[in-house]
Amino acid sequence: MLRRMTALSAVVLCAGKGTRMKSKKAKVLHAILGKPLCAYPLKRALELGATSVVPVVGHQAESVEKEVRALFPQAPLTFALQREQRGTADAVRSAEAALKGFSGRVLILYGDVPLLRKETLASLLAAHDAAGGVLAMVTTVLEDPTGYGRVLREGGRVTRVVEQKDASPEQRAVKECNAGIYSVDAAFLWKALADIKPNNAQGEYYLTDLVELAARQGPVGTVVADATETAGVNDKVELAARAKVLQRRINDAHMRAGVTLHDPDTTFIEEDVVVGSDSEVGPGVSLTAGSVIGEGVVIGPGCVVSASTVADGSVLKPYSVLEEAKVGVRNVIGPFARLRPGTELAEDVHLGNFVETKKAQIGKGSKANHLTYLGDARIGAGCNIGAGTITCNYDGVNKSLTELGDGVFIGSDTQLVAPVKVGDGAYVGAGTTVTKNVPPGSLAVSRAPQVTKEGWVAAKKARRAAKGG
Amino acid sequence: MLRRMTALSAVVLCAGKGTRMKSKKAKVLHAILGKPLCAYPLKRALELGATSVVPVVGHQAESVEKEVRALFPQAPLTFALQREQRGTADAVRSAEAALKGFSGRVLILYGDVPLLRKETLASLLAAHDAAGGVLAMVTTVLEDPTGYGRVLREGGRVTRVVEQKDASPEQRAVKECNAGIYSVDAAFLWKALADIKPNNAQGEYYLTDLVELAARQGPVGTVVADATETAGVNDKVELAARAKVLQRRINDAHMRAGVTLHDPDTTFIEEDVVVGSDSEVGPGVSLTAGSVIGEGVVIGPGCVVSASTVADGSVLKPYSVLEEAKVGVRNVIGPFARLRPGTELAEDVHLGNFVETKKAQIGKGSKANHLTYLGDARIGAGCNIGAGTITCNYDGVNKSLTELGDGVFIGSDTQLVAPVKVGDGAYVGAGTTVTKNVPPGSLAVSRAPQVTKEGWVAAKKARRAAKGG
Amino acid sequence: MLRRMTALSAVVLCAGKGTRMKSKKAKVLHAILGKPLCAYPLKRALELGATSVVPVVGHQAESVEKEVRALFPQAPLTFALQREQRGTADAVRSAEAALKGFSGRVLILYGDVPLLRKETLASLLAAHDAAGGVLAMVTTVLEDPTGYGRVLREGGRVTRVVEQKDASPEQRAVKECNAGIYSVDAAFLWKALADIKPNNAQGEYYLTDLVELAARQGPVGTVVADATETAGVNDKVELAARAKVLQRRINDAHMRAGVTLHDPDTTFIEEDVVVGSDSEVGPGVSLTAGSVIGEGVVIGPGCVVSASTVADGSVLKPYSVLEEAKVGVRNVIGPFARLRPGTELAEDVHLGNFVETKKAQIGKGSKANHLTYLGDARIGAGCNIGAGTITCNYDGVNKSLTELGDGVFIGSDTQLVAPVKVGDGAYVGAGTTVTKNVPPGSLAVSRAPQVTKEGWVAAKKARRAAKGG
Repeated sequence: MLRRMTALSAVVLCAGKGTRMKSKKAKVLHAILGKPLCAYPLKRALELGATSVVPVVGHQAESVEKEVRALFPQAPLTFALQREQRGTADAVRSAEAALKGFSGRVLILYGDVPLLRKETLASLLAAHDAAGGVLAMVTTVLEDPTGYGRVLREGGRVTRVVEQKDASPEQRAVKECNAGIYSVDAAFLWKALADIKPNNAQGEYYLTDLVELAARQGPVGTVVADATETAGVNDKVELAARAKVLQRRINDAHMRAGVTLHDPDTTFIEEDVVVGSDSEVGPGVSLTAGSVIGEGVVIGPGCVVSASTVADGSVLKPYSVLEEAKVGVRNVIGPFARLRPGTELAEDVHLGNFVETKKAQIGKGSKANHLTYLGDARIGAGCNIGAGTITCNYDGVNKSLTELGDGVFIGSDTQLVAPVKVGDGAYVGAGTTVTKNVPPGSLAVSRAPQVTKEGWVAAKKARRAAKGG
Repeated sequence: MLRRMTALSAVVLCAGKGTRMKSKKAKVLHAILGKPLCAYPLKRALELGATSVVPVVGHQAESVEKEVRALFPQAPLTFALQREQRGTADAVRSAEAALKGFSGRVLILYGDVPLLRKETLASLLAAHDAAGGVLAMVTTVLEDPTGYGRVLREGGRVTRVVEQKDASPEQRAVKECNAGIYSVDAAFLWKALADIKPNNAQGEYYLTDLVELAARQGPVGTVVADATETAGVNDKVELAARAKVLQRRINDAHMRAGVTLHDPDTTFIEEDVVVGSDSEVGPGVSLTAGSVIGEGVVIGPGCVVSASTVADGSVLKPYSVLEEAKVGVRNVIGPFARLRPGTELAEDVHLGNFVETKKAQIGKGSKANHLTYLGDARIGAGCNIGAGTITCNYDGVNKSLTELGDGVFIGSDTQLVAPVKVGDGAYVGAGTTVTKNVPPGSLAVSRAPQVTKEGWVAAKKARRAAKGG
Repeated sequence: MLRRMTALSAVVLCAGKGTRMKSKKAKVLHAILGKPLCAYPLKRALELGATSVVPVVGHQAESVEKEVRALFPQAPLTFALQREQRGTADAVRSAEAALKGFSGRVLILYGDVPLLRKETLASLLAAHDAAGGVLAMVTTVLEDPTGYGRVLREGGRVTRVVEQKDASPEQRAVKECNAGIYSVDAAFLWKALADIKPNNAQGEYYLTDLVELAARQGPVGTVVADATETAGVNDKVELAARAKVLQRRINDAHMRAGVTLHDPDTTFIEEDVVVGSDSEVGPGVSLTAGSVIGEGVVIGPGCVVSASTVADGSVLKPYSVLEEAKVGVRNVIGPFARLRPGTELAEDVHLGNFVETKKAQIGKGSKANHLTYLGDARIGAGCNIGAGTITCNYDGVNKSLTELGDGVFIGSDTQLVAPVKVGDGAYVGAGTTVTKNVPPGSLAVSRAPQVTKEGWVAAKKARRAAKGG
C-alpha cells in the first residue's frame, strides 16, 4: 500500500448490460483467468489504499453485488444503484450518497476495463499531486484514434476532450485519447457532475465534460498508459483478447522471478497463485484459485491445479488434476492422478496413474501407484496400496472411514469396506474383500480356492460346434 | 441460399498431385479442421445454390471421388477427369461435357484454396451482375505482389492479366493480383477455352487468358478479397497456416454469438459444430464431426468431443473423450471419462474419473463415479455403480447385455457377467461376481469369508530371514 | 560432415552465472526443448567436424562438465576452467592450453546462444576461406541496433567494431552489429588475445578487440545471420522465447518433409526425434528424447512420447503417455494409456483406456482394452485381457513375472499373482485370483457361489427405520 497524503476512494462502474456479450450474465461478471472482469479494477483500488470503494451496479445488480461481496468479503465496499443507464456521468453521480462526507480523491474506474495496472494508477495519483489541480486523467496514444475522444492541449496544458463527431480536422489529427479514467477531488466532482447536461441525441450525461470543468479550476494531471491497459471488453472476442494479455503479463512476471514456463502461450496462471523459483511448468497447465506451488516443483503437461498446495521438490506428472488438495514435499503424482478436496499428502508420497483420492490423509512414503480409489481414508506411513484397491466408503446411505496403520501392505484388487481398520504392518492378500478389522501384523485374505478344469476350452468349443451344427 | 436470377454451376479443380505435400495422399484430400481441403470450396458452391458442381479430378481420381461423394452424398456432383496435368484452362475444359446443356454461370474454384468465404463469392456473383459482362473475377491486393499475375486496368476497367515474367516495370508496380477465381458465362467459357493456346515453355493452357477474351466482350466485374482467403496450400507448412486462419474465423464467430472460449488459440471447432450461447470451452478442446453442444455447457480443458451431443447445463470436466455419445441435460462427466459410441445418458447422470462407457444407456440421476467399464449395458434411473465395476460383456466369442433396473446399488469391484439382469432396487455387495440374475429388492453377494492369520507377517519375515541366512 | 581443408576446433563459452535466470542452476544448463542451452552450440561445432571442442566452464563448473559429458559421451571435449569472470577475451584465453598444438581454425561460440544454425556456421567458415584473412565474424542487421557493437567498414572491408558508448552519431546509425561469433586462425588468436588489454571500467577483457587486430592482418570475412539466430538467453522470458523459435524451426522442417502437424504452435518435437512421412501429430503432443515415429502413424491430442518407438501405421489415441516403450506396427493405443519403460508390443496390439504397462512384452494381436495393469509380464499372441486385470507383480519384497501363452482369455477383474503362468489357450473366469499355474486349454476360476437374499433391501430399510425411530 502506498503512503498517501490524501484520502482515497474509488467509484467502479459495473452497471452495464453488455448486450454484445450475448449472455444471460452481466458483463462485469464474465471472467478472465478465473476472476470476473470487475474484480480487477476493484482489487487495484483496494491495493492503492482506497478506504471506500463504490461499485455502481445496475443491470443484474443483485448478482453483481453478491459475487463481488463474495470475492472481497473484508473490503470497504458500498454498492450504489444506477436505476437507468443514462451515461457515465449519471453512473458516477449514483455513487455520491455512498461517499457522503468523504473529502479526499475519487478514482473513477470501469468494471469492464480489467487490465489497468496498479503502477499506472499510482502514476495517475502522482500526476494529480504534481499538477496540483482538481483532476488527473489517463490518456493513451493511438496510431488510429478514430472514434475516441481527443485530448486537447494549449501550451501543453489540457483544456478539454473533444469527441470524434465534434472534432475539427486538426483536432482529429490528435493521437492522444481520453481513456476515461480519472482521479478527481471529491468536492469538485459532485459539484461538477451536477453541472453536466445531456448535450447529445441520446440524452445521456457524459463524464468527459468533467475535464473541461476541471481545467478551468487548475492544471489537469495526465499519465499516458499503453492501449492494452485501457481497453475494455464489449464481446467475447475482446474478452479472450484481454485474457491473453493478462496471461502473458502474469506469466512474464513468474518467468522473471525464476519460474520456468515451457510454453507461456498455453500456461494459465491466475493472479493470486504463487509459484516458487526453479519450478517448471509444462504446456497446457492451469494453476488457479490461489494455489501455492513450492520451489523446484515440476508440473508436467496438462496438469490442472485448483486451490491446492504443492510443496518443494514434488513432481506432478502429465494430466494430474488437483482440487483443494495438499501435496507434501517430494511427492510423485500422476500421470492421470485425480486428487479431490480433502486430499492431504505427507512427504515422499507416490500416487500413480488412474488413482483418485478424496478426503484422504496419506502418511510419509506411502504409495498407491495404479488404478485405485482412496476416499474417506486415513493411511499411515510406509504403506503399499496395490493396484485396483478401492475404499468402499459409501453403502448407499452413509459414508464411512477406512483407516490403515503404518507399513500396511494392501494386495491388488482389494476392497476395503468401510468402516474398517487395518493395523500396523498388516498384510492383505490380493483380491480380498476386507469387511472386518485386520489386527496389526496379521494377514487377511478372503479367497475362494482356485479351481482348474483341464480340457475345458476344447470341450466348450466342441459343445458350441455341436450347437452351431 | 441466395435468390439468383441466373442458374449457377461450379467447376472445382481437384486434379493436382501436390508433390510438395510429400504424401501418398492426393493434395485436396489433406484435411484442415477435420475436412479435406476440397470440401470447403465444394461446400461454398453448394451453399450459393449451384445446381451442378463438377470436381475435376486427376491424380488419385478414384480416391478423391470416393471421399468427396461420401462427404456430400446428396449433392448434384458430376466428376470430370483431367487425364494429364496440362494447365488450369485444360482442367476447366475437362468439365465441359459434364456441364453440357447448362447455360448459366460457372464458378471456377480450386480444391486447394479452402478459405474463400461464401460472402466473397456472393459478392463475385453480384459484381458479375453489376458489370453486365461475361466474366467476374476475384482479385487481391498484395504489398509484395512478386510472382503473381497483375490485373491491368484502363480507365478503371480490367483489360487483362499479365504474368510476372511478361510484365513491364510499370506493370510490376501494380499491386492488384489475380486470384484465379472466376464467375463466367457458360456460353462464353467453352468458346473461349477452345481459343486458348499454350503460349509458354511448359506447353500448358492457362486460364488467365480468359480475362482478356472476356474484357473484349464487356466489362469484367471484380471483387477484392483478403489474401488469407485466396491463399492455396502447397505444402504442410501452408496446410497448418490455413488451418490456423480457419480456426480463428470459426472461433471468432462462436465468440461473437455468445460462446466463451477461454483460449481460442488452442480451441479446435470444426465448421459444422453447433455450440449454444453461454457455454464455456476450455483450452485444448476439440469439438468435431458435427457435435452439438447445448447452452450453458461447461467443457473443461483438453476435452475431445467427436460426433456427440451434450445437452444444456452439462459439465465435461478436464480430459473427457466423447465419440458418438449423447449426453443429457445437467450431466457431470469426467475428468478422464471416456464415452464411446452408443453411449446415451439421460438427465442428471454423473460419470466420474476413469470411467468408460460403450453402447450404454443410463437412466436419470444414475452415477458411476470411479474406475468403471460399462459396455453393452442398459441401466435404469437412480442407480449407484460403485468404483471398479465391470460389465463382462465379452466371453471370448460373443458380446452380451447387462441390464440394471432403477435404484440399483452395485458395490465396488463388482463384475456383472453378461447376459445378466439386476432388478429394481437390488443391492450387490462389494467384490461380487454376478453370474445369475438378481431379483428386485434382493441382495446378491459372492464372497469367501475373510480369514485372518495373526502374527503371519512376523512369521513370514522369520522364514525369509532363515532362508536368506 | 563437411569436407574442410583446414582443421577445426571450437571454444564454447559456458562459464557465466546467469543471475537474471534466478536459479540455483547454471545458466547454460537450462533447457529448451529437452536439451541444455549449451548442447546446441556444442552439437553444431561437432556437426561441422570440429576435432577438438573446448567448453569453457566457470560457474558450477563441475555440474556443467558432468552434464555435458553425459550428453556427448563420445565427443572430443576438453574442459577449460575460467576461474574469474573477467570478460569474454579472458574466457577464450582459458581455452588456450586445451588447444595447445592445434594449428587450424577456432570457432568461438556461446553456451547461451542456442539457435545458431549449422548452415550459418558453414557460411562463416566459407567466408573465412573466401576472405583469406585470419578471422571471419557473424553479424546481424538490426532495425534498432541501440546497445550493440557496430561493425565499421571502409570501402566495404571491416575495420573494427565500435561499442555503443564509444560510437559517434554516424557510427550509431550503422545497423550492422557484431554477433560476437568468430572463426579465427589459432595462431593469430592466441597472440592477439595476449595483446588485448582491459580498457574499460570493469577491468574486463573484451573479445571485440580481436576484430580490429585481425583487420590489420587481412580481410575479415563476414556472414549476416538473422537476429533470431544470434540472440542469447538472459532470463526465463528469453528462454521461453528462444524455445518458441526452435520449436517452430523443427516443426517446419517436419512439415516440409511430409509430416502433418495439426497445430504446430502446440506441438513440441525435440531436435533428435524422427517422424515418418504421412504421420499426423495432434495438438499438445510432445515427442522427446530421441523417439522414433514411423510412417502413417496417427498421434492424437496431448500424447506424451519420450524415448520410445512407434512403428508404421500405429494409432496413439488422445492422452497416451509413453516412456521408453516400443510400439509395433498397426497398434491401437489409448486414450489414456500409459506405457512405462520396458513395454514391448508386437504388431496389431491393442491397449485401451486406463491401461498401464511396465516391463511387459505383448504378442501379436493381443488386446487389453480397459482398466488394466500389466507389469513384469510376458504375454503371447492373440490373448484377450479383460477389463480390470492386474498383474500382482510385487509382494512387498520381490517383483515376479507373469507369463501368458498364446490365445489366452483372461476374464475381467482377474488378479494374476506372480510368479504365475497361464498356458496356451487357457481361460480364466472373471474375478479370479490366479495363484497357481493354469495348464494350457484349461479353465481356471476361484469364485465363491453367488448368494441371493430376497427381500434383503426392504428388511434393511425397516431395520434402519426402526433404529432411526
